[in-house]
Amino acid sequence: MKLDLPERVTVYEVGPRDGLQNEARQVPTADKVRFINALVGAGVRNIEITSFVSPKWIPQLADAADVARSVARPDGVRFSALVPNRRGLDAALAAGMPEIAVFLSASETHNKKNVNKTIEETLRAFEEVVPPARAAGVPVRAYVSTVFGCPYEGDVDPARVTWLTRELRAMGVYQVSLGDTIGVANPRQVQQVLERVLADVPARGDDGVDLLAVHFHDTQGTALANCLVSLTLGITTIDSSVGGLGGCPYAPGASGNLATDDLVAMLHAMGVQTGIDLDKLIDCARLAATFVGHELPSKYMKAHIGKQARARRRAERETMG
Amino acid sequence: MKLDLPERVTVYEVGPRDGLQNEARQVPTADKVRFINALVGAGVRNIEITSFVSPKWIPQLADAADVARSVARPDGVRFSALVPNRRGLDAALAAGMPEIAVFLSASETHNKKNVNKTIEETLRAFEEVVPPARAAGVPVRAYVSTVFGCPYEGDVDPARVTWLTRELRAMGVYQVSLGDTIGVANPRQVQQVLERVLADVPARGDDGVDLLAVHFHDTQGTALANCLVSLTLGITTIDSSVGGLGGCPYAPGASGNLATDDLVAMLHAMGVQTGIDLDKLIDCARLAATFVGHELPSKYMKAHIGKQARARRRAERETMG
Repeated sequence: MKLDLPERVTVYEVGPRDGLQNEARQVPTADKVRFINALVGAGVRNIEITSFVSPKWIPQLADAADVARSVARPDGVRFSALVPNRRGLDAALAAGMPEIAVFLSASETHNKKNVNKTIEETLRAFEEVVPPARAAGVPVRAYVSTVFGCPYEGDVDPARVTWLTRELRAMGVYQVSLGDTIGVANPRQVQQVLERVLADVPARGDDGVDLLAVHFHDTQGTALANCLVSLTLGITTIDSSVGGLGGCPYAPGASGNLATDDLVAMLHAMGVQTGIDLDKLIDCARLAATFVGHELPSKYMKAHIGKQARARRRAERETMG
Repeated sequence: MKLDLPERVTVYEVGPRDGLQNEARQVPTADKVRFINALVGAGVRNIEITSFVSPKWIPQLADAADVARSVARPDGVRFSALVPNRRGLDAALAAGMPEIAVFLSASETHNKKNVNKTIEETLRAFEEVVPPARAAGVPVRAYVSTVFGCPYEGDVDPARVTWLTRELRAMGVYQVSLGDTIGVANPRQVQQVLERVLADVPARGDDGVDLLAVHFHDTQGTALANCLVSLTLGITTIDSSVGGLGGCPYAPGASGNLATDDLVAMLHAMGVQTGIDLDKLIDCARLAATFVGHELPSKYMKAHIGKQARARRRAERETMG
C-alpha cells in the first residue's frame, strides 16, 4: 500500500453543535461562547457553532442567536449553523451566520424518523433554504447521514449516496459531508463507497474548494482507520468533535463522534498539517468536559492528561529531593 | 489506495498474560482457567496464557504452572507462556507448555530498565533459552518492544529493529512480534518501519508460517489504523487482548492493548476471516471485566452491550404492550 497522504487537512469542528446537542446538562450561553472562542484560539478554522432549530426540539441550542452574536469572529474563521427549514435560515441570516448547513439521510426510514419527510420531500424543502441562502451570499453545506449503514434498513446503496450528492451539488450546496451516523463503517467499505461517489463527484472543485467531506463516528473504534482510507482517496475535509463530545448512540461510555484531538494527533504524527495547536485543543476538550459534567471518550486526551500528571509528579519529586 | 487485504488473519490473544499481569486485583486460578477455556470456546487458537517469571516480580502470575496444567487443550489450539530465563523455561517445559515466548526491547534504555541488561547481554541470555526449548520440540516466539518509540529515547531506528529481528530469527525464534509498547505508532510510521523490516525478513516463511507479527497499543486510538496498514503490507498475525484488558500505561481509563473484539469486529466487517465467534468473544470480555472488577476499554464491547440492552428494552416493551 502506498500511503499517499495530503499535506494538509481541514478539520471541520462540530463539537459546539453536534456535540452539545446530545448532552443532558444545559450549558450556559456564556460557556458556549467561551468554548467556541477557545477553539478559535487553538487554530480551528471551521466550526459548526449551533443550530437554528425549534427550542422545543433541542432546548440545549435555544440560544442559537445569542451564541452567534456573541462569538468573536477573527479573519479566516468560518462559523456555520445547522438550519432545518426556511424559518431557521431567516434566523441564521438575521444573526449574521456566514455559513449554514442542511441535513438529510441516505436511507428513507432514517430520514422519515428524523425529519418526518421522504427524501424527495426533504430535497424539495431544501429548495426553500439553499437558493435563498446563496442569494444572501451564504454558502451551504449538507450532511448526508447513514451513508455507511442505517439502523433500520441496514446496508445503504452507494449509488443512492452518489445520486443524493449530485442532487445537492446541483442545488448549489458547496460541500457534502458523508456521515457514518451509527459508527458501523469499516475501511474496505469506506473505500468502496468513496470510490463510487468520487467516480461522479471529485473531491475538490476547480477553485480548490473541497466538495466532499467525511464524518465518522468512533463507536467501534474504526474512525481513524476510516479517515486514513479517505485521505488516501483524496478527501481533505474531515468532521470531528473535540474530546469526542456528543453522539452517544449506544451505551454510557460508548463513543459517538470521532474526537478532534485523536484525529489531529494522528494527522500531525504523520506530518499532515491542520493549523491546530494540539495542546490548546486538549485545553478545549477539558473545558468542554467541565461544562457537560462527565469524562469525554477521546483517547489522546486521556493519554495526554496522564502524561502531564506523571511529569508533574516527577517534577515534584525532583523539587523535594 | 488499493486495500489489498488477506483472506484470513491469525489473532494472537495475550489477555490472560499481558492483560492480567497489570491488574491490581488477584484473579483466582480457577477463574483464569475458566477465562482461557472460554477463549478457546470462542474460537481463539493462539493464546498466551501465563508467564513463568518469579512470583516476586509478578504475583498475579505466580500460579503459572497450575494454570498451564489445568486448561483444556483441544486439537488446533496452541498455548504459549512468557519465559524470562532458563529457570522459567524449565518450569514451562515441566508444565508441558507447547510454545514459549522471550522478550526484549529495541531501545537500550528501555531494555535496561526492564530486564537490567544491555540488548547484547539479553541476546546472549536467550542462548540459554531458545536452543534448549527447540531441542525439547517447543517453538519460541519473541516480542520486541518499543519498536515504534521509546519513553526514554524517543525515536527508534528501524534498521536496529531489522537487525534484532534477524538475530532472533538466526537463533531459531519462529516468529517476531513487533510491539508499540507505549502506543505512539502512526500509520505512516508503521508503513516505513515494516517496509524496512520486510526488506530483510519476509512476512511468511516457505512453510507458510508467519515470521512477523504486530502488537499495537491503542493508547491514542490509532491501533486499528496501524493494523490496517500492516495487513496491506502482508502481515497476517496480530496480537491483541480481549476487551482491551491490561496495559494501562497512562491515566485511568486510558487504553493499553488493542482490544481483540475491536480488531475482530473490523476484520470480519471487511470480510477477513479469523475463525473467532465475535458474540462469544464479547462474553469472554465480560467475564474478564468481572474478574478484574472494572470496565474494559474495548469500544466494540460497549457498543455491543448497549445494543443488547436496547433490544432487551424493546422486547420488554413489546411483551408488556
